[in-house]
Amino acid sequence: MTYELYYWPGIQGRGEFVRLALEEAGADYADVARTKKGIESMMAMLEDKSAIRPPFAPPFLKHGRLAIAQVANILLYLGPRLDLAPRTPADRLFIHQLQLTVMDLVAEVHDTHHPLGTGFFYEDQKPEARRRAKEFRESRIGKFLGYFERIVAANPMGSGWLVGVDATYIDLSLFQVVEGLRYAFPQAMAKQENQWPHLVASHDRVSARPRLAAYLASDRRIPFNEDGIFRHYKELDS
Amino acid sequence: MTYELYYWPGIQGRGEFVRLALEEAGADYADVARTKKGIESMMAMLEDKSAIRPPFAPPFLKHGRLAIAQVANILLYLGPRLDLAPRTPADRLFIHQLQLTVMDLVAEVHDTHHPLGTGFFYEDQKPEARRRAKEFRESRIGKFLGYFERIVAANPMGSGWLVGVDATYIDLSLFQVVEGLRYAFPQAMAKQENQWPHLVASHDRVSARPRLAAYLASDRRIPFNEDGIFRHYKELDS
Repeated sequence: MTYELYYWPGIQGRGEFVRLALEEAGADYADVARTKKGIESMMAMLEDKSAIRPPFAPPFLKHGRLAIAQVANILLYLGPRLDLAPRTPADRLFIHQLQLTVMDLVAEVHDTHHPLGTGFFYEDQKPEARRRAKEFRESRIGKFLGYFERIVAANPMGSGWLVGVDATYIDLSLFQVVEGLRYAFPQAMAKQENQWPHLVASHDRVSARPRLAAYLASDRRIPFNEDGIFRHYKELDS
Repeated sequence: MTYELYYWPGIQGRGEFVRLALEEAGADYADVARTKKGIESMMAMLEDKSAIRPPFAPPFLKHGRLAIAQVANILLYLGPRLDLAPRTPADRLFIHQLQLTVMDLVAEVHDTHHPLGTGFFYEDQKPEARRRAKEFRESRIGKFLGYFERIVAANPMGSGWLVGVDATYIDLSLFQVVEGLRYAFPQAMAKQENQWPHLVASHDRVSARPRLAAYLASDRRIPFNEDGIFRHYKELDS
């Protein structure tokens, strides 16, 4: 049964974490809002007043009769089905926990350019964004990535992945975090990256996996841009 | 086996969502950091360099050999064990999805008083907090609570709960959201509440449940205060 992903076309955004899992697994999926009339179909689902369980916001995934929203929840569902989750319930809870921490980081990245909320344009909150981004670069990036580094380093299997012996969706998500932070904050990342050798090595291994490499080189991978979550504004990087 | 909850003593904060579930179920649990030397024990766990799977931040729950972090993940684990989750996998995914949306709302509530991040005191970001809080009151409260109202109203069982025929942990969490928003933004809530009759009715039914009522009247329930997430600052409410 085809997976149908619904997400804003034109940005990687939160949807990209789901795309990476579907692509790595070679899953049969449609990126609906990027197809003809797809965006109308997504908006109709969001605005359908008769829906019993509407999603709050994109991304959401349709699979048969299920419509699942919230990135971490989608990956919780997809992980075992795409063979991108560990076997035991305890390990599955743990990578879900890590994914939730990734989503917290993603929300903080968004707040670096929108500290006053999405009701104002970036142009109307630039001084505030500079203050927030400075703290993010100096304290938060290191706190988060240092944490994930420690988890990879402490994996008793010594596999170089976060949990167990094989790559799971959380490794794909952390690849995306490193890519995104490098795009948004190239100077800050260049200065700090050598503190996280395991994480960077895992990032490199993810990008070299055949299916992922093919995806990243394709036009299915939307380039980073300043409508997404990871945005590069020079003034926020120094 | 006793559940051990670890969370900052002195505030309700994110830990309260876990406390409400444990209390409603009459579970055998310890609120460790509020016991003698408990805070030392929590800090030791957070700072233990030899830990293989340390939590990123409180709250976390110890249960036997498991240590589980992230509120929504803790409730995903506890729900079926405390008889506070629906039966089917689809329903469980859905209340988890709703809980993740609650956590997004909670993060936005926190940002109303800390739009520039936790690196600055509230006193050092008051004008920014006023701008962010205004948008939150005028757009975000209604968007979130209107969404949850719609889910309760559309429940095909007509039970007055969010999912199925019985109360689950998501009903407890939404009780807490309504309580917290009333505390932080009394004027804004008084003006808008009549738009969400199902949600308010469900809040009232939760607070009348015997175990919950006993808990709320006890000194185990920490009063709301200005160190927590839901804070009342007059200037942010009008």
